[in-house]
Amino acid sequence: MYQYTKLISFSKEIFLQMGCSEADADTASKTLVSADLRGVDSHGVARLSGYVRLWEAGRINAKPNIKIIHETPSTAVVDADAALGLVAAPKAMQIAIDKAKLAGTGWVSVQNSNHYGIAGHHAMMALDNDMIGISMTNASPLVAPTFSLERLLGTNPIAVAIPAGQEPAFVADFATTTAANGKLEMLQRKSLEAPLGWIQDKQGSQSSNPHELKDGGALLPLGGDREHGSHKGYCLGSIVDIFSAVLSGANYGPWVPPFVSFLPLPADPVGKGIGHFFGAMRIDAFRPAADFKAHMDNWIKRFRNAPAIEGEKVQIPGDFEREISKDRMKVGIPLLPPVVKDLQEVGKKFGVEF
Amino acid sequence: MYQYTKLISFSKEIFLQMGCSEADADTASKTLVSADLRGVDSHGVARLSGYVRLWEAGRINAKPNIKIIHETPSTAVVDADAALGLVAAPKAMQIAIDKAKLAGTGWVSVQNSNHYGIAGHHAMMALDNDMIGISMTNASPLVAPTFSLERLLGTNPIAVAIPAGQEPAFVADFATTTAANGKLEMLQRKSLEAPLGWIQDKQGSQSSNPHELKDGGALLPLGGDREHGSHKGYCLGSIVDIFSAVLSGANYGPWVPPFVSFLPLPADPVGKGIGHFFGAMRIDAFRPAADFKAHMDNWIKRFRNAPAIEGEKVQIPGDFEREISKDRMKVGIPLLPPVVKDLQEVGKKFGVEF
Repeated sequence: MYQYTKLISFSKEIFLQMGCSEADADTASKTLVSADLRGVDSHGVARLSGYVRLWEAGRINAKPNIKIIHETPSTAVVDADAALGLVAAPKAMQIAIDKAKLAGTGWVSVQNSNHYGIAGHHAMMALDNDMIGISMTNASPLVAPTFSLERLLGTNPIAVAIPAGQEPAFVADFATTTAANGKLEMLQRKSLEAPLGWIQDKQGSQSSNPHELKDGGALLPLGGDREHGSHKGYCLGSIVDIFSAVLSGANYGPWVPPFVSFLPLPADPVGKGIGHFFGAMRIDAFRPAADFKAHMDNWIKRFRNAPAIEGEKVQIPGDFEREISKDRMKVGIPLLPPVVKDLQEVGKKFGVEF
Repeated sequence: MYQYTKLISFSKEIFLQMGCSEADADTASKTLVSADLRGVDSHGVARLSGYVRLWEAGRINAKPNIKIIHETPSTAVVDADAALGLVAAPKAMQIAIDKAKLAGTGWVSVQNSNHYGIAGHHAMMALDNDMIGISMTNASPLVAPTFSLERLLGTNPIAVAIPAGQEPAFVADFATTTAANGKLEMLQRKSLEAPLGWIQDKQGSQSSNPHELKDGGALLPLGGDREHGSHKGYCLGSIVDIFSAVLSGANYGPWVPPFVSFLPLPADPVGKGIGHFFGAMRIDAFRPAADFKAHMDNWIKRFRNAPAIEGEKVQIPGDFEREISKDRMKVGIPLLPPVVKDLQEVGKKFGVEF
């Protein structure tokens, strides 16, 4: 078990060594480790060495000039200047929040960015401001739209954080696929089969082989197949892609650059880097905050206390991650041996002990 | 086959007889028949008698005073005064569009409304203004959240319409369940079984009986079961419910009033009527409209031409409905015998021939 504070200070040191400013390294490390805290192990410190490799490959700019390149009272487009998404995303979300303070809502589309960690972390920045937060990002193509043999979309997650009163906030954060890529990686490590409905093979038939993506297969949009609504998951993934990249001027669809540095960049980019989209809506731009929160409490209690299937309970989005987070803050974060080894090697590279 | 223009003029006459103004009857009839044109037969003239019965029961106000009760530069809350949703929704969407003209985006939450027809019709109002349109509504509880035995959410649809250049617009419009209720009704009429993953019985087990909802069963959120991501469909349905009703002051969750007049209203309402949520985003609030449209064209062409499973093709959201619409404008709209009988009876009631 590793204390989350130690993981943050180690990551921060690495980001500093990469040349990030004190403030940026602080933001990036906290954003990164928020994934480990919330139980999304695939998006936390396990990715640190991946960011380093992207920096080494010259795809991440440690000293970016992140700036607004177009705006209206309630919107902005941000050029992230090839920054770490872990740095660009909180800055863009803050712009959305600042716009919302004046205009009621704020909407920010980001171009020229990189992987931004977990979507939910950024959406949750709105909560302390009595705002609803929205966060989404496109990602490298792993997903085949309904009937497609080709991977055209990323797992393109959506997060929506909604403040409550006495109850903890409602925080939805999910990939627009049946299963996130992190879950597939888990099955690969454990040599387990995937449920049908998660993956297709290169002919477009359902497959239970978690290694199928290495052989021309694809993840499936939420719904799995046409009969079970995969066209709806495809719609959701597309909307995330368009809001994040066609609105901002980033790469979209099959042109989104890969996260791993050993894969080449597409030869014919249609924009800059990857794209994100953020929203902030002041709740008192609609009704008094106290009224809204009292009704959210009522909504949450009513759903949480509904009769459930034997042995289960109705959860509120965010319950699961909040419980894990509480637990991991106390007892520490478990890291798999290969992740520990990876962090030690990253440390060695920069003369920082892990 | 029935000419759509005749269905519009018949519906308009009925709305006039109910006491609607000329302008409102015009809007309501066009909104209603847009569903028949787009192939969503469950939401078109088949529902006309349902609206009449709600009006007879005093739940629909034919002469509403629809007004903004709270606003900021980019937001508004509208009290629909128990109007037909078919009238309230286009008015609210127009407010969102007007806000977007000044502030870049406009977001309108509506309380005290009724069923609003198809979500996509309202979202598409944004297209002519070079805006992205968003439309969602809550609805009476038919859906059990993941692990719930109780129906707490409606089929709560989301529509997003995005303008393109040479290509037709991208128009997503879908219920946040595995299958819409209209598809279930079709199976009931044809005495066919439903695919597993659409419905659960009163014990929470998967069922293929399309009549299960009459015996304590429920529709399932998009994803179907936990393993296939039903918690994501549950998140989506919840977000629609909260944006439409908790933000506006309408009824939410299990308190949403039923569409059918023979079911009583909940005894302990938590708000007024049902709720909707609309958004409009000016595309040139992000980047020049011509750039955006050129890239949307590229996005659409790239996806449409992707290699597909034998005998299928990759469709762009909205393709299917646009094709049906073109066809039905020419050859007319097919109506089932019970729908024709229903319309004849509605006509008789008001002395209008069908």
